[in-house]
Amino acid sequence: MIVIVSNQTPQEQVKEITTVIEQAGLQAHISRGADHTVIGLIGTAEPRLMEHLQQMKGVEKVMKISKSYKLASRDFHPENTVIQIGDVSIGGGELVVMGGPCAVESAEQIDEIARLVKAAGGQVLRGGAFKPRTGPYSFQGVGVEGLIMMAEAGKKHGLLTITEVMTPEYVDICGEYADILQVGTRNMQNFDLLRKLGESKKPVLLKRGFSSTYDEFLNAAEYILAGSNPNVMLCERGIRTFETYTRNTLDLSAIPVLQQLSHLPVISDPSHGTGRRELVEPMTKASVAAGADGLIIEMHTDPDNSMTGDGVQSLFPDQFAKLLRDLEQLSPIIGKTFSTAKAPAAFFESSVQV
Amino acid sequence: MIVIVSNQTPQEQVKEITTVIEQAGLQAHISRGADHTVIGLIGTAEPRLMEHLQQMKGVEKVMKISKSYKLASRDFHPENTVIQIGDVSIGGGELVVMGGPCAVESAEQIDEIARLVKAAGGQVLRGGAFKPRTGPYSFQGVGVEGLIMMAEAGKKHGLLTITEVMTPEYVDICGEYADILQVGTRNMQNFDLLRKLGESKKPVLLKRGFSSTYDEFLNAAEYILAGSNPNVMLCERGIRTFETYTRNTLDLSAIPVLQQLSHLPVISDPSHGTGRRELVEPMTKASVAAGADGLIIEMHTDPDNSMTGDGVQSLFPDQFAKLLRDLEQLSPIIGKTFSTAKAPAAFFESSVQV
Amino acid sequence: MIVIVSNQTPQEQVKEITTVIEQAGLQAHISRGADHTVIGLIGTAEPRLMEHLQQMKGVEKVMKISKSYKLASRDFHPENTVIQIGDVSIGGGELVVMGGPCAVESAEQIDEIARLVKAAGGQVLRGGAFKPRTGPYSFQGVGVEGLIMMAEAGKKHGLLTITEVMTPEYVDICGEYADILQVGTRNMQNFDLLRKLGESKKPVLLKRGFSSTYDEFLNAAEYILAGSNPNVMLCERGIRTFETYTRNTLDLSAIPVLQQLSHLPVISDPSHGTGRRELVEPMTKASVAAGADGLIIEMHTDPDNSMTGDGVQSLFPDQFAKLLRDLEQLSPIIGKTFSTAKAPAAFFESSVQV
Amino acid sequence: MIVIVSNQTPQEQVKEITTVIEQAGLQAHISRGADHTVIGLIGTAEPRLMEHLQQMKGVEKVMKISKSYKLASRDFHPENTVIQIGDVSIGGGELVVMGGPCAVESAEQIDEIARLVKAAGGQVLRGGAFKPRTGPYSFQGVGVEGLIMMAEAGKKHGLLTITEVMTPEYVDICGEYADILQVGTRNMQNFDLLRKLGESKKPVLLKRGFSSTYDEFLNAAEYILAGSNPNVMLCERGIRTFETYTRNTLDLSAIPVLQQLSHLPVISDPSHGTGRRELVEPMTKASVAAGADGLIIEMHTDPDNSMTGDGVQSLFPDQFAKLLRDLEQLSPIIGKTFSTAKAPAAFFESSVQV
Repeated sequence: MIVIVSNQTPQEQVKEITTVIEQAGLQAHISRGADHTVIGLIGTAEPRLMEHLQQMKGVEKVMKISKSYKLASRDFHPENTVIQIGDVSIGGGELVVMGGPCAVESAEQIDEIARLVKAAGGQVLRGGAFKPRTGPYSFQGVGVEGLIMMAEAGKKHGLLTITEVMTPEYVDICGEYADILQVGTRNMQNFDLLRKLGESKKPVLLKRGFSSTYDEFLNAAEYILAGSNPNVMLCERGIRTFETYTRNTLDLSAIPVLQQLSHLPVISDPSHGTGRRELVEPMTKASVAAGADGLIIEMHTDPDNSMTGDGVQSLFPDQFAKLLRDLEQLSPIIGKTFSTAKAPAAFFESSVQV
Repeated sequence: MIVIVSNQTPQEQVKEITTVIEQAGLQAHISRGADHTVIGLIGTAEPRLMEHLQQMKGVEKVMKISKSYKLASRDFHPENTVIQIGDVSIGGGELVVMGGPCAVESAEQIDEIARLVKAAGGQVLRGGAFKPRTGPYSFQGVGVEGLIMMAEAGKKHGLLTITEVMTPEYVDICGEYADILQVGTRNMQNFDLLRKLGESKKPVLLKRGFSSTYDEFLNAAEYILAGSNPNVMLCERGIRTFETYTRNTLDLSAIPVLQQLSHLPVISDPSHGTGRRELVEPMTKASVAAGADGLIIEMHTDPDNSMTGDGVQSLFPDQFAKLLRDLEQLSPIIGKTFSTAKAPAAFFESSVQV
Repeated sequence: MIVIVSNQTPQEQVKEITTVIEQAGLQAHISRGADHTVIGLIGTAEPRLMEHLQQMKGVEKVMKISKSYKLASRDFHPENTVIQIGDVSIGGGELVVMGGPCAVESAEQIDEIARLVKAAGGQVLRGGAFKPRTGPYSFQGVGVEGLIMMAEAGKKHGLLTITEVMTPEYVDICGEYADILQVGTRNMQNFDLLRKLGESKKPVLLKRGFSSTYDEFLNAAEYILAGSNPNVMLCERGIRTFETYTRNTLDLSAIPVLQQLSHLPVISDPSHGTGRRELVEPMTKASVAAGADGLIIEMHTDPDNSMTGDGVQSLFPDQFAKLLRDLEQLSPIIGKTFSTAKAPAAFFESSVQV
Repeated sequence: MIVIVSNQTPQEQVKEITTVIEQAGLQAHISRGADHTVIGLIGTAEPRLMEHLQQMKGVEKVMKISKSYKLASRDFHPENTVIQIGDVSIGGGELVVMGGPCAVESAEQIDEIARLVKAAGGQVLRGGAFKPRTGPYSFQGVGVEGLIMMAEAGKKHGLLTITEVMTPEYVDICGEYADILQVGTRNMQNFDLLRKLGESKKPVLLKRGFSSTYDEFLNAAEYILAGSNPNVMLCERGIRTFETYTRNTLDLSAIPVLQQLSHLPVISDPSHGTGRRELVEPMTKASVAAGADGLIIEMHTDPDNSMTGDGVQSLFPDQFAKLLRDLEQLSPIIGKTFSTAKAPAAFFESSVQV
């Protein structure tokens, strides 16, 4: 940490600042420049000290040199975190594809979609049972029954499952039925939820807040890691910018940046990231080329009639299957492995519909 | 609602769209232009219909003409909502000033600050008992005890109290001790919390999400109103932009815009809106000139040593008192009433410290 | 300037960095912290040195402590710059109101509007002769003839004039006819234009780029000042954010911030800043309350039929006159002077139309 | 075009609006809904009509249904524009790589870099002779001599050349020496420059304004096309967002979006788009995977000592060569062709330095 003080600050005030630093058990190292004095802190500072210093008289600025998160940082944990769930490993060089509808609508729907995700080569089934909606009059999800339907579909077709959890009270029940718990963009800084997930051992996919910086994103991950849950994936899902043609601006630089700053796997969500079906294919490929460890993609058998209105960004099953075959070619060039071979071709061909 | 369809869309598909509209009990009115056909919907459409239509083949765009919120809209409720709490009325022409520390730290601290807020002419005491912090290692608030301390200070000095509530489970306990419940910027779309507040009868101050549009903000208010709680205040507290010199960009246009679109009182928060003490005074005055119904301002007796690090944006007591005397002059010119007369001058003079 | 180097950087590389600093004639002061070494530069660094250092191996970050602009800075020039043009002084405590149409359309139009601006108490007539338009098929202005019409109207009614200059070649001709030259938001970083204006002696109103930081804004002003033209006004005119309900987000914090960082007068443009007529009145008042030295406001006798489509943000003459009377009341409370008394009341009453 | 009118608007005013539409030679088609009346315009409207309508009383909103640009639109020109320069074709399936320094510094520097670009498989040499700098005290480029040096280096090594042109007066001289003229991000709406380029026949690479929407970007291209220069490339180079870790946020969705809306080739600039050397490789690959027709990449033989400070985002020659070999593998999977074979391997191996 560095404290910048104007040279017009009286010496007694500078003294008071260094006293505060020393009382916190650190050393203060002073460099006097032409206009400013820079006080370097030597030792490990508590966040509270920074907060205290930045409001002291004479202090122009306090700058962190080290990061405010620790467990999430690659400095602290140089090797990649690899999350192993059943026979799927995330973050270890295998490309992971999560596919499925925005919302679970019925047992038939989720069963059929699970069959298609598996057939196409996906490893995880996604689907929402509780939906966060910006207006109070929209469809709010089918609830716990949806969790059960999805769990059954996943088991039957040999897929892991992921679902969004919206409040601390639902962490346990969602964790009972799903393999991965997702934190949505509006909950990235719902600290009670993050703490509760930190107490759980379930793998968590944490979506970036749509206006959160990388630093805030990694601090949110830190909340979960600071419990005792090391199984966190980071998910870039688009940020809010001045451009409104796309629903969000998918920030693909986040992928290599987060992989540098952190050891956690990074997943890309081109469906929410663009909000437009015709952009999902190119942005999925771009995500893989940028180094993503996995993808979460919306797919629906009847997007024109999906219950959440998110059908507009959902792929048709044949588009999804075609895209995964393309990823099979693309992955090795980027140093990832991905195979669509597990599904019997015959089964696959017959299941694809336009 | 309007549906835009390209003229290259086959007639059967247009027919299918109009059938969906008619099955929903509305009329479809078709205008065929040079390149596009516009289908106007006559009648009141459910949100689900819009969602359905925008994902149908051939549909280029669905545009809402009417607003997606209703109870929050001035069209629906032309007169201003006036929230009466004790002898304070908010939204009815009286300027309301809420002042106090970021966090309650001790009984002595909050008692002394309450005395100063009252002396300066404020009507409401603010203070956080639970603090949402972006990093897990920061000070997280003193909890329920803080609520009790604040309630006692408020009662003793004749001030209403406002505190932030962060999760649905805390709505009841916070409501027991505080007169107004505040929803923070990171919780503006915590829909479970909004619903719970809708069941409460406590007045709510809803802060704008730091990246939320006016439309999203009013839809969040709608969640509370759609319960059966009509006592909602909207609070502009700064938005996130590319400019980082200020902590946020205080969007003062929000004040007249929200007052046009809605009947709810609009409060401004120049402390969080700027994040810098030296900007609080000019931006408070600008808020009043723009038509704000009230203000929420951070003030601390010892900002250099506040426990949350937000001291950097807190006024000193004398700055707070001076500002309120300036508002007393400014208010009548803008058509608002505000008086600092209730506090005995002698008491006041003695209490101010630099 | 401070250079941050990771402690994993080899000592020889740190040595190389300090050698570069010393060869530039500065001293390098080293503080070794837990994870990072901070090298403080003592002396005055050329911008090139910073650029050089930030690309050297081992350097994590170079941070400016001092500002990159000098002539525009209040550190360098502590007193307010007061620009005196005829009997109007800008930046010295008098509130200056510039009013008029987006574009000069005809001699009759600009003459009538000049009469109304003067009658209402304004001191400067605004009007564009050349219009920067985002699409090539829109009205592009009437050209030099418009300059002449505006100059005549200004002289006849006793008003100064301001017009936008878009390219270096037009600086001389525009300067011949207008009293103040305006640089539009899209030209804030048209460095050739800035340099040419620096050679001129004409007062310049420099609009903030709609996505420019305060730092970039002041660096653009520096270009003009670094010529030998000290007569620069800064104009906040709204920035681009995610909110699209208003055309721009008027960033009123810019007013006190720029007045702190710089000694130059700060003008507010609530017309472009909001893009909506009904917001011009509250945001004008808010601008004055925030401390603006002046305002530039669009007014048109027939906004419904203005030639640029900007009529939607233009006040009607009676709204403009009423607003200025309100400012007369508001100004002294903020410590500014403004009078509408110069225009004979009879003349004024007869000229106002609804 | 659609005009939205509130149903509270008096009938005479609606009549007036329809009269204006009909006098412009179009038909007005009225749909009366529950709260609003929608007037559809049938026929081709001039931009001026839209501007006029949106400022008429009673009009809540005017919405374009058709696009405001025409020549740049794929509706108007369904096939891809392919720009042929010598034996390089851009937009026709061949991936084009432009590489070189931010600024030409000396004849030796540009000759050596040209050799390396050619050796690595690039087709175009980039380099700035005039530099737009945000502060007046930074290095401003070597001028016309730099143009000559670059032209000679390009000719000697069999590369096309591209350079930035900053003002209309320099279009001719830059066009004499360079094969492609680049418009920088700060000049995207320098309309005089665009018009001058429209009169030229030189291919133009138009960079997106760092805060410009797709619509504004295509309108800027329209200015050039509306002259009579059909040879325009669009270049995504990053936009300004709240995230400051990267210099800009490279918006890769722009690539497929612009290719859908327009027929013009789309080039990506991962160097300025990220501002960080370590992100250039992943974001180059992501650009290609998203469908880019070409790339413009900064490379320098001695980035630590580049004269502009942009070395921090410049690749070293061996990184550049390695990246192009990777693109050779990646391109065919995305349906593009790219070969590094033209350069003799021996020559290549010897030229690469770390």
